[in-house]
Amino acid sequence: MTRNRHWVLLRRPEGLPQLADFEIREDDVSEPAEGEVLLRVLYAAMDPAIRGFMNAGGYAAPLPLGAPVKGMVLGRVLRTKARGFATGDLVWGFGSWSEYVSVPAAQLHRAPIEAGLDLSASLHVLGTIGLTAHYGLFGIAAVKPGERVLVSGAAGAVGSLAGQMARIAGASRIIGIAGGPEKCARAVAEYGCDSCIDYKAEADLSAAIGAALPEGIDVCFENVGGAALDGALAHLRKDARIALCGMISGYNAEAQSLKNAWGLVVNTARLHGFRVTDILADRVRMSAMLAEIAGWIAAGKLRWHVDVRYGFEAIPETFLCLFSGAHTGRLLVRLAGD
Amino acid sequence: MTRNRHWVLLRRPEGLPQLADFEIREDDVSEPAEGEVLLRVLYAAMDPAIRGFMNAGGYAAPLPLGAPVKGMVLGRVLRTKARGFATGDLVWGFGSWSEYVSVPAAQLHRAPIEAGLDLSASLHVLGTIGLTAHYGLFGIAAVKPGERVLVSGAAGAVGSLAGQMARIAGASRIIGIAGGPEKCARAVAEYGCDSCIDYKAEADLSAAIGAALPEGIDVCFENVGGAALDGALAHLRKDARIALCGMISGYNAEAQSLKNAWGLVVNTARLHGFRVTDILADRVRMSAMLAEIAGWIAAGKLRWHVDVRYGFEAIPETFLCLFSGAHTGRLLVRLAGD
Repeated sequence: MTRNRHWVLLRRPEGLPQLADFEIREDDVSEPAEGEVLLRVLYAAMDPAIRGFMNAGGYAAPLPLGAPVKGMVLGRVLRTKARGFATGDLVWGFGSWSEYVSVPAAQLHRAPIEAGLDLSASLHVLGTIGLTAHYGLFGIAAVKPGERVLVSGAAGAVGSLAGQMARIAGASRIIGIAGGPEKCARAVAEYGCDSCIDYKAEADLSAAIGAALPEGIDVCFENVGGAALDGALAHLRKDARIALCGMISGYNAEAQSLKNAWGLVVNTARLHGFRVTDILADRVRMSAMLAEIAGWIAAGKLRWHVDVRYGFEAIPETFLCLFSGAHTGRLLVRLAGD
Repeated sequence: MTRNRHWVLLRRPEGLPQLADFEIREDDVSEPAEGEVLLRVLYAAMDPAIRGFMNAGGYAAPLPLGAPVKGMVLGRVLRTKARGFATGDLVWGFGSWSEYVSVPAAQLHRAPIEAGLDLSASLHVLGTIGLTAHYGLFGIAAVKPGERVLVSGAAGAVGSLAGQMARIAGASRIIGIAGGPEKCARAVAEYGCDSCIDYKAEADLSAAIGAALPEGIDVCFENVGGAALDGALAHLRKDARIALCGMISGYNAEAQSLKNAWGLVVNTARLHGFRVTDILADRVRMSAMLAEIAGWIAAGKLRWHVDVRYGFEAIPETFLCLFSGAHTGRLLVRLAGD
């Protein structure tokens, strides 16, 4: 039998996760069950959402202690007991921090091999990241030409695409929020923003948002929560839409307090939480969105960056980088060659 | 010349408004300007929203000091310089705390004289109150048969109609929140609720909501804000809609903190502020909504109560009753006979 390794959750993090919260466990690679596909994991993607699985109160029932940590992976099909996939196929979907993992075929998607694109695009612009930006901006916020858009986490994976897609949509003004001058510069130079607020340099983030968007916000793509979201709520235009994608500023802390929800009433605005899982479950809609994104890539309208670390052992330390901000692009761990 | 009296705002309330914040000023009744209609005010309606005009940060630019306080009135047309209204017509719309007031015709609506209905119905079920409940429940929250509905302020004017309209819509379970056993009893006996949570008797309002709706909330009609809204956010079902009508619990206090906005992401739910003014500006849609409400009245499906106080002098003290909860129905002041 081939041996397999998994990173399992040893204890529930309090605040920031630590390396000691995780441990490697070994077992034998098991056969896929009926309807499943066995993958060799090539890449694991480090998502802030993974933090949400580690404690109660997150997206779903918390991950059992001792179980492999869940997350998006890209892999090659080794064996299949499901229709629709063949040995050798490259697929992406919701797997785990494992060298080999069996996944229900219903959760898997074929990785498109576009000319000139790295495989890892399926864990970014042509995967959940691109779909999240597209769904939030067009599906949830219904951005229209000429609107004023605020994007928090503007140099992050999702935010960087949201800014560029707002540009594609014809937004009249796109303001980013990011942490530090380098990220802000990148948000403007590469990610579609007209200007970018460095939240680390602003004592009053709300005032900075008001100064950057004196006519207010039509659409906010919110990845961060906390002061960024509260500042957005204080500067809404009539009928504004906030696509609430994530609230990473609070994932490791006590619940965040919002003080400006009244702005929703005054401006008849809406704060709309969403999850890309709703799109993953709708293959027809997902395919149409991916096709549109692929068209933008082909037209040279989208840039994205991955920050790849190497080796199965590096997974937890790479995950922790998410919360320190010490990365320049979507964090991926490459476990094996193609 | 006929003399006129107005209640004007003398100073901006800090916290709860006080009688000394208001003062009577006299002048002569003036002629309506072009496009305006001069009314003799028969009823003035006491709305929580009026509190919002008194300070900065409310619905609009704050009321100037020394100016008559604005609010909904019902009146009889004395003179008109606008098409569409004739002397003697009964109309309702946005006027002021005055004995006579000239109002742009575009802001006025003819009061329907339905058989057996008191005039004051136009300041309640057949006016902004009925429209607010209808718009929030059907237009904003899009309630569907079989859904689980939470209504805060369930014995208040808007809430009492929202509960009954949820019943008409075929909601499977309707839970109210109100203050005190009498209001709770009325919410159940008269206003469509299956049961009603007495927030004054609950140390943990969120837990009480969870106990009353163990399967969670599909639709929340939110009039109160504060702990009621935060409790609702903690018990959302997937794709829940919160129609955010008002946040009266905070109108006289510091901004309210919401801690559970994360529930919007987890449940892909939306928090949607709205204002009935959008409906008042759309006469076609408004007429259709009023016709539907009139049909429900004719079918005996809606109850409503007014709590009428008498005399122009009584306006400010009646307004203050809104915030003490010491009233049993929509608070109106009757200024003059028909």
